[in-house]
Amino acid sequence: MYQNEIIVDGLQYCHWDRAYFESLQKSGVTAVHATLVYHENARETLTRFAEWNLLFERNADLIMPVMSMEDIRSAKQCGKVGIFFGAQNCSPIDDEIGLVEVMRKQGLLIMQLTYNNQSLLAAGCYEQEDAGITRFGKQVIEEMNRVGMVIDMSHSAERSTLETIELSARPICISHANPSNVHSALRNKSPEVIRALTARGGLLGFSLYPFHLPDGSKCSLETFCQMIAETADEVGVEHLAIGSDLCLNQPQSVLDWMRNGRWSKSLDYGEGSASNAGWPAALPWFPDSSGMKNIYKGLRDIGFNEAETTAVMGGNWLNFLDAGLRPAL
Amino acid sequence: MYQNEIIVDGLQYCHWDRAYFESLQKSGVTAVHATLVYHENARETLTRFAEWNLLFERNADLIMPVMSMEDIRSAKQCGKVGIFFGAQNCSPIDDEIGLVEVMRKQGLLIMQLTYNNQSLLAAGCYEQEDAGITRFGKQVIEEMNRVGMVIDMSHSAERSTLETIELSARPICISHANPSNVHSALRNKSPEVIRALTARGGLLGFSLYPFHLPDGSKCSLETFCQMIAETADEVGVEHLAIGSDLCLNQPQSVLDWMRNGRWSKSLDYGEGSASNAGWPAALPWFPDSSGMKNIYKGLRDIGFNEAETTAVMGGNWLNFLDAGLRPAL
Repeated sequence: MYQNEIIVDGLQYCHWDRAYFESLQKSGVTAVHATLVYHENARETLTRFAEWNLLFERNADLIMPVMSMEDIRSAKQCGKVGIFFGAQNCSPIDDEIGLVEVMRKQGLLIMQLTYNNQSLLAAGCYEQEDAGITRFGKQVIEEMNRVGMVIDMSHSAERSTLETIELSARPICISHANPSNVHSALRNKSPEVIRALTARGGLLGFSLYPFHLPDGSKCSLETFCQMIAETADEVGVEHLAIGSDLCLNQPQSVLDWMRNGRWSKSLDYGEGSASNAGWPAALPWFPDSSGMKNIYKGLRDIGFNEAETTAVMGGNWLNFLDAGLRPAL
Repeated sequence: MYQNEIIVDGLQYCHWDRAYFESLQKSGVTAVHATLVYHENARETLTRFAEWNLLFERNADLIMPVMSMEDIRSAKQCGKVGIFFGAQNCSPIDDEIGLVEVMRKQGLLIMQLTYNNQSLLAAGCYEQEDAGITRFGKQVIEEMNRVGMVIDMSHSAERSTLETIELSARPICISHANPSNVHSALRNKSPEVIRALTARGGLLGFSLYPFHLPDGSKCSLETFCQMIAETADEVGVEHLAIGSDLCLNQPQSVLDWMRNGRWSKSLDYGEGSASNAGWPAALPWFPDSSGMKNIYKGLRDIGFNEAETTAVMGGNWLNFLDAGLRPAL
């Protein structure tokens, strides 16, 4: 059945080139939420869009841009991989409320309010203090709601996340993180956050980044699927999806950019450490996007029926984004 | 008949506010080519788009954005004024080829390659030397052709303009200028340019800026219409239109920005002079957009039939842009 279903990976940041697009197409994934920027400001974000436009032009037989969920259905029909963009930080809007709509029109469909650190909008998950949503943050949440840009709190701190769930008139997502009661990590989310998120119609994408998993790179497929099954029992399978956080073929310099941006003179190791500064080893059952098939099978094996499995593998992202991307009336 | 026709003003840069939009709507003009920027760079251009988004949001009963000529027909149907954007200089793309597509997607439908001065692409009409189209300029012309962004050479120098007409795979426009044999001015266009422009399917928008007219602010409606009639005899009425260059309610600071940008420490007076540094007095028969009705009548009086008149007043812009804005296959 895998061939007929829409499969969505809710977060990747790979080295985007033709070879990778070919492997993506072969993997059977229908659409990918691609990270456009980490810390790039408004001007730099335009260059990222320009680079992607060239990729679309030169690989038009393999990939296509996604501006609405209709485009994902089109991608499925013509056998291409749909790419939709998100920012992992709010840097693309600088300090300007009007850039939310500008970036949305350019194709930024999803934006995190903060990436690990305090931003102009909210606190990140690595800050010691979390003072919640800022004055500008409240304006931006309202504006994102208005224009139909999806709020993502994957890298945000607890209080900021809970406040955003409450403040946002639309459901929000946590595109790539896991429950902290399965694996304790600053990047994972508490039961309270996951309950509040899903109670308001939000979506949780389960992450395959080893630092987010029990036993890291040795986490078994069964443990991963068990985590989804337990969360489904608690909050309902319709709120659950995949956001693999796959970062393939990226050099150390990209990891340094993700973790350090321009904000630190000394190296920050993010979820790693000085003695473990590199990329974690991949999960053997998720070496690349082809691993989505293993997850599909793993979910079936652990007891999800076919409808539930296809919902987690793509249908839930589709429904969530379909509503989330429509401009408010 | 004026009420039923689509009327297009091919260039305005007024102080855009609700009062002005009300007067525009009342004037019967269907759509306006609004100058978005003069010298603003890529980042600053985003702020101009953001400011316009707010104007669209707050004046949605009066105006609507135009991304294709279908939108102009919609504007006509619902009695709103359609606004489509152009840049008077190539500053929105900085030095980056990929920004042509980025700006086009954001809604920049028309771009001049230069404004009076040498740019990275071409020479402006006030330069003493005109070395023609630069290396970057050739790339940008090709890219504008590809994405369907219309080339405008209103403020460009002779050789650069002729080369662009030749290099461009699509017809280009001179949105607001007059024949230099009717009124000699650096901003007006030679018979050779007008012949080459129209022979390749290009469009000339006649300007109502007094500095472009014989007798300046005292130019009569009949003289203006006579100029159009003579040009129609030479190159065909289907290539002729109106680009009023109307700049209403703008302070001197805006005139200074137009003329000086950031390039000059001493004041440049453009088409004016130290003793005549301000805005020229308006033509009595074209005090604002309502004057389009006078031109309609003047063209009929001078002998254009109804079809020819409505073509000049809007239909020619519509046809030209309809083809020019479609992406190349």
